[in-house]
Amino acid sequence: MLILASKSPRRAQILELLGVDFKVVEPFCEEDAFDTVELAKRKALSVSSKFPDDYVLGSDTLVFCGDEVLGKPKDREDAVQMLKKLRNKKHFVITGVALCKDNTVLFAESQKTEVNFRDYSDLEILNYILTMEYADKAGAYGAQGKGARFIDSINGCFYNIMGLPIAATLKALGKMEVF
Amino acid sequence: MLILASKSPRRAQILELLGVDFKVVEPFCEEDAFDTVELAKRKALSVSSKFPDDYVLGSDTLVFCGDEVLGKPKDREDAVQMLKKLRNKKHFVITGVALCKDNTVLFAESQKTEVNFRDYSDLEILNYILTMEYADKAGAYGAQGKGARFIDSINGCFYNIMGLPIAATLKALGKMEVF
Repeated sequence: MLILASKSPRRAQILELLGVDFKVVEPFCEEDAFDTVELAKRKALSVSSKFPDDYVLGSDTLVFCGDEVLGKPKDREDAVQMLKKLRNKKHFVITGVALCKDNTVLFAESQKTEVNFRDYSDLEILNYILTMEYADKAGAYGAQGKGARFIDSINGCFYNIMGLPIAATLKALGKMEVF
Repeated sequence: MLILASKSPRRAQILELLGVDFKVVEPFCEEDAFDTVELAKRKALSVSSKFPDDYVLGSDTLVFCGDEVLGKPKDREDAVQMLKKLRNKKHFVITGVALCKDNTVLFAESQKTEVNFRDYSDLEILNYILTMEYADKAGAYGAQGKGARFIDSINGCFYNIMGLPIAATLKALGKMEVF
Protein backbone atom coordinates (compact mmCIF):
# COMPACT_ATOMS: atom_id res chain seq x y z
CA MET A 1 0.00 0.00 0.00
CA LEU A 2 1.14 3.54 -0.79
CA ILE A 3 0.64 6.43 1.62
CA LEU A 4 0.87 10.05 0.44
CA ALA A 5 2.35 12.02 3.35
CA SER A 6 0.77 15.30 2.32
CA LYS A 7 -2.54 17.01 2.83
CA SER A 8 -2.23 18.87 -0.50
CA PRO A 9 -5.26 18.09 -2.69
CA ARG A 10 -3.12 18.92 -5.74
CA ARG A 11 -0.58 16.19 -4.93
CA ALA A 12 -3.43 13.71 -4.48
CA GLN A 13 -4.84 14.81 -7.85
CA ILE A 14 -1.49 14.19 -9.59
CA LEU A 15 -1.14 10.71 -8.05
CA GLU A 16 -4.66 9.97 -9.29
CA LEU A 17 -3.63 11.10 -12.80
CA LEU A 18 -0.83 8.53 -12.58
CA GLY A 19 -3.38 5.81 -11.81
CA VAL A 20 -1.97 4.96 -8.37
CA ASP A 21 -4.00 3.67 -5.40
CA PHE A 22 -3.04 5.43 -2.17
CA LYS A 23 -4.29 6.82 1.09
CA VAL A 24 -3.38 10.14 2.68
CA VAL A 25 -1.76 10.54 6.10
CA GLU A 26 -0.75 13.99 7.26
CA PRO A 27 2.97 14.25 8.16
CA PHE A 28 4.15 15.74 11.43
CA CYS A 29 7.67 17.16 11.46
CA GLU A 30 9.71 20.34 11.75
CA GLU A 31 9.71 22.38 8.52
CA ASP A 32 12.58 24.66 9.49
CA ALA A 33 14.76 24.00 6.42
CA PHE A 34 15.06 25.33 2.88
CA ASP A 35 16.03 21.98 1.36
CA THR A 36 13.06 20.33 -0.33
CA VAL A 37 14.67 16.86 -0.42
CA GLU A 38 15.40 17.06 3.32
CA LEU A 39 11.83 18.18 4.02
CA ALA A 40 10.36 15.50 1.75
CA LYS A 41 12.39 12.86 3.64
CA ARG A 42 11.32 14.21 7.03
CA LYS A 43 7.67 14.17 6.01
CA ALA A 44 7.85 10.63 4.61
CA LEU A 45 9.81 9.30 7.60
CA SER A 46 7.40 10.87 10.08
CA VAL A 47 4.61 8.77 8.58
CA SER A 48 6.78 5.70 7.88
CA SER A 49 7.54 5.39 11.61
CA LYS A 50 3.84 4.77 12.22
CA PHE A 51 3.17 2.62 9.14
CA PRO A 52 6.35 0.57 8.68
CA ASP A 53 4.72 -1.96 6.31
CA ASP A 54 3.61 0.67 3.79
CA TYR A 55 5.46 2.69 1.19
CA VAL A 56 5.29 6.41 2.04
CA LEU A 57 5.70 9.25 -0.45
CA GLY A 58 6.73 12.62 1.00
CA SER A 59 7.08 15.86 -0.89
CA ASP A 60 7.87 19.51 -0.31
CA THR A 61 7.67 22.52 -2.62
CA LEU A 62 9.43 25.87 -2.26
CA VAL A 63 9.50 28.95 -4.46
CA PHE A 64 12.82 30.75 -4.95
CA CYS A 65 12.81 34.32 -6.25
CA GLY A 66 16.24 35.97 -6.32
CA ASP A 67 17.69 35.60 -2.80
CA GLU A 68 14.32 34.93 -1.24
CA VAL A 69 12.44 31.76 -0.41
CA LEU A 70 8.67 32.16 -0.62
CA GLY A 71 6.53 29.82 1.43
CA LYS A 72 2.76 29.98 1.90
CA PRO A 73 1.48 33.54 2.43
CA LYS A 74 0.57 34.41 6.03
CA ASP A 75 -2.40 36.53 5.01
CA ARG A 76 -3.96 38.48 2.13
CA GLU A 77 -1.46 41.34 2.34
CA ASP A 78 1.46 38.91 2.32
CA ALA A 79 -0.02 37.26 -0.81
CA VAL A 80 -0.30 40.63 -2.58
CA GLN A 81 3.35 41.40 -1.76
CA MET A 82 4.48 38.00 -3.08
CA LEU A 83 2.58 38.45 -6.36
CA LYS A 84 4.06 41.93 -6.78
CA LYS A 85 7.53 40.51 -6.12
CA LEU A 86 7.11 37.74 -8.73
CA ARG A 87 5.65 40.06 -11.41
CA ASN A 88 7.46 40.42 -14.75
CA LYS A 89 10.37 38.21 -13.76
CA LYS A 90 11.68 34.69 -13.44
CA HIS A 91 11.47 32.47 -10.36
CA PHE A 92 12.12 28.82 -9.62
CA VAL A 93 9.86 26.20 -8.10
CA ILE A 94 11.68 23.27 -6.52
CA THR A 95 9.87 20.16 -5.33
CA GLY A 96 11.57 17.36 -3.41
CA VAL A 97 10.16 13.84 -3.51
CA ALA A 98 11.09 10.98 -1.17
CA LEU A 99 9.87 7.40 -0.95
CA CYS A 100 10.34 5.51 2.31
CA LYS A 101 9.52 2.10 3.70
CA ASP A 102 10.15 0.78 7.19
CA ASN A 103 11.94 4.02 8.17
CA THR A 104 14.34 3.69 5.25
CA VAL A 105 14.65 6.18 2.38
CA LEU A 106 14.43 4.25 -0.92
CA PHE A 107 14.42 7.27 -3.25
CA ALA A 108 14.93 11.01 -2.89
CA GLU A 109 15.27 13.63 -5.61
CA SER A 110 14.31 17.20 -6.37
CA GLN A 111 13.17 18.82 -9.59
CA LYS A 112 13.44 22.49 -10.55
CA THR A 113 11.05 24.35 -12.86
CA GLU A 114 11.75 27.87 -14.09
CA VAL A 115 8.64 30.05 -14.23
CA ASN A 116 8.43 33.37 -16.10
CA PHE A 117 5.65 35.65 -14.95
CA ARG A 118 3.78 38.20 -17.09
CA ASP A 119 3.75 41.91 -16.38
CA TYR A 120 0.23 41.75 -14.91
CA SER A 121 -1.64 44.68 -13.36
CA ASP A 122 -2.41 45.41 -9.70
CA LEU A 123 -6.08 44.86 -10.58
CA GLU A 124 -5.30 41.33 -11.77
CA ILE A 125 -3.59 40.67 -8.43
CA LEU A 126 -6.58 41.97 -6.46
CA ASN A 127 -9.06 39.95 -8.53
CA TYR A 128 -6.96 36.85 -7.89
CA ILE A 129 -6.75 37.50 -4.16
CA LEU A 130 -10.56 37.61 -4.06
CA THR A 131 -10.70 34.01 -5.33
CA MET A 132 -8.86 32.89 -2.15
CA GLU A 133 -6.84 30.48 -4.33
CA TYR A 134 -3.60 31.94 -2.98
CA ALA A 135 -4.22 30.75 0.57
CA ASP A 136 -2.41 27.41 0.87
CA LYS A 137 0.15 27.79 -1.91
CA ALA A 138 3.89 28.54 -1.82
CA GLY A 139 4.41 31.79 -3.74
CA ALA A 140 0.69 32.64 -3.37
CA TYR A 141 -0.43 31.19 -6.72
CA GLY A 142 -1.57 27.94 -8.26
CA ALA A 143 -0.44 27.16 -11.81
CA GLN A 144 -3.45 24.94 -12.50
CA GLY A 145 -6.20 27.36 -11.44
CA LYS A 146 -6.90 31.03 -12.05
CA GLY A 147 -3.23 31.68 -11.22
CA ALA A 148 -2.49 30.38 -14.74
CA ARG A 149 -3.00 33.96 -15.99
CA PHE A 150 0.20 35.12 -14.29
CA ILE A 151 2.42 32.67 -16.20
CA ASP A 152 4.03 33.60 -19.48
CA SER A 153 6.14 30.45 -19.89
CA ILE A 154 7.81 27.70 -17.91
CA ASN A 155 10.88 25.52 -18.40
CA GLY A 156 10.65 22.12 -16.71
CA CYS A 157 7.80 19.98 -15.41
CA PHE A 158 4.45 21.78 -15.10
CA TYR A 159 3.20 19.43 -12.37
CA ASN A 160 6.31 20.23 -10.33
CA ILE A 161 4.80 23.70 -9.83
CA MET A 162 1.60 22.05 -8.60
CA GLY A 163 3.57 20.01 -6.05
CA LEU A 164 4.72 16.71 -7.61
CA PRO A 165 7.12 16.29 -10.54
CA ILE A 166 5.70 13.55 -12.78
CA ALA A 167 8.90 11.85 -14.00
CA ALA A 168 10.56 11.85 -10.55
CA THR A 169 7.37 10.52 -8.93
CA LEU A 170 7.19 7.69 -11.49
CA LYS A 171 10.85 6.89 -10.70
CA ALA A 172 10.02 6.83 -6.98
CA LEU A 173 7.01 4.57 -7.55
CA GLY A 174 9.26 2.28 -9.63
CA LYS A 175 11.09 1.46 -6.37
CA MET A 176 7.95 -0.19 -5.01
CA GLU A 177 8.16 -3.94 -5.44
CA VAL A 178 4.52 -4.25 -6.43
CA PHE A 179 4.38 -1.39 -8.94
CA MET B 1 -20.06 39.54 -26.54
CA LEU B 2 -17.22 37.05 -27.15
CA ILE B 3 -17.67 33.90 -29.23
CA LEU B 4 -15.20 31.03 -28.99
CA ALA B 5 -15.05 29.50 -32.49
CA SER B 6 -14.01 26.06 -31.25
CA LYS B 7 -15.76 22.99 -29.95
CA SER B 8 -12.74 22.01 -27.82
CA PRO B 9 -13.83 21.70 -24.17
CA ARG B 10 -10.22 22.42 -23.15
CA ARG B 11 -10.21 25.82 -24.85
CA ALA B 12 -13.51 26.66 -23.13
CA GLN B 13 -11.99 25.60 -19.80
CA ILE B 14 -8.98 27.92 -20.31
CA LEU B 15 -11.23 30.90 -21.19
CA GLU B 16 -13.19 30.16 -18.00
CA LEU B 17 -9.92 30.20 -16.01
CA LEU B 18 -9.33 33.68 -17.43
CA GLY B 19 -12.70 34.81 -16.12
CA VAL B 20 -14.17 35.62 -19.52
CA ASP B 21 -17.87 35.37 -20.49
CA PHE B 22 -18.35 33.74 -23.88
CA LYS B 23 -20.48 31.45 -25.94
CA VAL B 24 -19.32 28.67 -28.25
CA VAL B 25 -20.07 28.50 -31.99
CA GLU B 26 -18.51 25.74 -34.07
CA PRO B 27 -16.45 27.04 -37.02
CA PHE B 28 -16.93 25.74 -40.54
CA CYS B 29 -13.96 26.08 -42.87
CA GLU B 30 -11.31 24.16 -44.80
CA GLU B 31 -8.51 22.88 -42.55
CA ASP B 32 -6.11 22.01 -45.39
CA ALA B 33 -3.14 24.06 -44.15
CA PHE B 34 -0.25 23.58 -41.74
CA ASP B 35 -0.20 27.20 -40.58
CA THR B 36 -1.93 27.57 -37.22
CA VAL B 37 -2.36 31.37 -37.55
CA GLU B 38 -3.99 30.94 -40.98
CA LEU B 39 -6.29 28.22 -39.59
CA ALA B 40 -7.15 30.28 -36.50
CA LYS B 41 -8.10 33.21 -38.77
CA ARG B 42 -10.21 31.00 -41.04
CA LYS B 43 -12.07 29.55 -38.08
CA ALA B 44 -12.71 32.97 -36.52
CA LEU B 45 -13.76 34.55 -39.83
CA SER B 46 -16.15 31.69 -40.61
CA VAL B 47 -18.07 32.51 -37.43
CA SER B 48 -17.59 36.31 -37.69
CA SER B 49 -19.42 36.32 -41.04
CA LYS B 50 -22.54 35.09 -39.23
CA PHE B 51 -22.14 37.19 -36.06
CA PRO B 52 -20.66 40.52 -37.25
CA ASP B 53 -21.48 42.35 -33.99
CA ASP B 54 -19.56 39.95 -31.76
CA TYR B 55 -15.87 39.42 -31.12
CA VAL B 56 -14.82 35.96 -32.29
CA LEU B 57 -11.78 34.04 -31.02
CA GLY B 58 -10.43 31.31 -33.30
CA SER B 59 -7.62 28.91 -32.53
CA ASP B 60 -5.81 25.95 -34.04
CA THR B 61 -3.22 23.59 -32.57
CA LEU B 62 -0.74 21.38 -34.43
CA VAL B 63 2.00 19.05 -33.20
CA PHE B 64 5.33 19.04 -35.08
CA CYS B 65 7.69 16.09 -34.61
CA GLY B 66 10.77 16.20 -36.84
CA ASP B 67 9.50 16.60 -40.42
CA GLU B 68 6.01 15.45 -39.56
CA VAL B 69 2.85 17.26 -38.59
CA LEU B 70 0.63 15.25 -36.27
CA GLY B 71 -3.08 16.01 -36.25
CA LYS B 72 -5.82 14.12 -34.43
CA PRO B 73 -5.40 10.32 -34.67
CA LYS B 74 -7.74 8.59 -37.10
CA ASP B 75 -8.17 5.55 -34.87
CA ARG B 76 -6.65 3.59 -31.99
CA GLU B 77 -3.80 2.15 -34.08
CA ASP B 78 -2.93 5.61 -35.41
CA ALA B 79 -2.82 6.91 -31.80
CA VAL B 80 -0.45 4.08 -30.77
CA GLN B 81 1.86 4.92 -33.68
CA MET B 82 1.87 8.63 -32.76
CA LEU B 83 2.74 7.92 -29.12
CA LYS B 84 5.55 5.57 -30.22
CA LYS B 85 6.83 8.27 -32.57
CA LEU B 86 6.84 10.92 -29.81
CA ARG B 87 8.51 8.67 -27.20
CA ASN B 88 11.86 9.68 -25.68
CA LYS B 89 12.24 12.78 -27.84
CA LYS B 90 11.34 16.42 -28.30
CA HIS B 91 8.38 17.79 -30.26
CA PHE B 92 6.74 21.17 -30.64
CA VAL B 93 3.15 22.21 -30.11
CA ILE B 94 2.12 25.36 -31.96
CA THR B 95 -1.19 27.10 -31.35
CA GLY B 96 -2.45 30.01 -33.43
CA VAL B 97 -4.92 32.50 -31.95
CA ALA B 98 -6.96 35.04 -33.91
CA LEU B 99 -9.52 37.61 -32.79
CA CYS B 100 -11.99 38.97 -35.35
CA LYS B 101 -14.91 41.37 -35.43
CA ASP B 102 -17.14 42.24 -38.35
CA ASN B 103 -15.06 40.06 -40.71
CA THR B 104 -11.88 41.90 -39.76
CA VAL B 105 -8.85 40.30 -38.05
CA LEU B 106 -7.92 42.42 -35.00
CA PHE B 107 -5.19 40.14 -33.63
CA ALA B 108 -3.38 37.02 -34.81
CA GLU B 109 -0.36 35.30 -33.28
CA SER B 110 1.05 31.85 -32.68
CA GLN B 111 2.93 30.42 -29.71
CA LYS B 112 5.32 27.48 -29.68
CA THR B 113 5.91 25.14 -26.76
CA GLU B 114 8.70 22.55 -26.76
CA VAL B 115 7.67 19.26 -25.15
CA ASN B 116 10.13 16.55 -24.08
CA PHE B 117 8.62 13.10 -23.70
CA ARG B 118 9.78 10.36 -21.31
CA ASP B 119 11.00 6.97 -22.45
CA TYR B 120 7.71 5.29 -21.50
CA SER B 121 6.85 1.64 -22.09
CA ASP B 122 4.50 0.07 -24.64
CA LEU B 123 2.32 -0.95 -21.68
CA GLU B 124 1.96 2.71 -20.65
CA ILE B 125 0.84 3.53 -24.19
CA LEU B 126 -1.74 0.71 -24.20
CA ASN B 127 -3.09 1.70 -20.77
CA TYR B 128 -3.46 5.28 -22.02
CA ILE B 129 -5.24 4.20 -25.20
CA LEU B 130 -7.79 2.37 -23.05
CA THR B 131 -8.75 5.69 -21.39
CA MET B 132 -9.91 7.00 -24.81
CA GLU B 133 -8.36 10.37 -23.90
CA TYR B 134 -6.31 10.32 -27.13
CA ALA B 135 -9.36 10.53 -29.38
CA ASP B 136 -9.83 14.23 -30.15
CA LYS B 137 -6.30 15.49 -29.53
CA ALA B 138 -3.51 16.49 -31.93
CA GLY B 139 -0.57 14.17 -31.21
CA ALA B 140 -2.90 11.70 -29.44
CA TYR B 141 -2.32 12.98 -25.90
CA GLY B 142 -3.65 15.58 -23.51
CA ALA B 143 -1.15 17.33 -21.23
CA GLN B 144 -3.75 18.05 -18.56
CA GLY B 145 -5.12 14.52 -18.14
CA LYS B 146 -3.58 11.09 -17.84
CA GLY B 147 -1.33 12.02 -20.79
CA ALA B 148 0.67 14.05 -18.22
CA ARG B 149 2.67 10.88 -17.49
CA PHE B 150 4.34 11.03 -20.93
CA ILE B 151 5.85 14.48 -20.33
CA ASP B 152 9.29 14.90 -18.83
CA SER B 153 9.52 18.68 -19.26
CA ILE B 154 8.24 21.54 -21.37
CA ASN B 155 9.61 24.91 -22.45
CA GLY B 156 6.93 27.52 -23.12
CA CYS B 157 3.29 27.92 -22.11
CA PHE B 158 1.67 24.77 -20.66
CA TYR B 159 -1.83 25.86 -21.72
CA ASN B 160 -0.59 26.23 -25.30
CA ILE B 161 -0.34 22.41 -25.35
CA MET B 162 -3.96 22.23 -24.18
CA GLY B 163 -5.04 24.52 -27.03
CA LEU B 164 -4.85 28.17 -25.96
CA PRO B 165 -1.70 30.09 -24.98
CA ILE B 166 -2.55 32.22 -21.94
CA ALA B 167 -0.46 35.34 -22.59
CA ALA B 168 -1.39 35.54 -26.31
CA THR B 169 -5.08 35.02 -25.49
CA LEU B 170 -4.96 37.83 -22.91
CA LYS B 171 -3.35 40.07 -25.56
CA ALA B 172 -6.12 39.16 -28.02
CA LEU B 173 -8.81 39.88 -25.42
CA GLY B 174 -7.12 43.21 -24.76
CA LYS B 175 -8.17 44.25 -28.30
CA MET B 176 -11.82 44.08 -27.23
CA GLU B 177 -13.14 47.53 -26.45
CA VAL B 178 -15.14 46.35 -23.47
CA PHE B 179 -12.48 44.17 -21.86
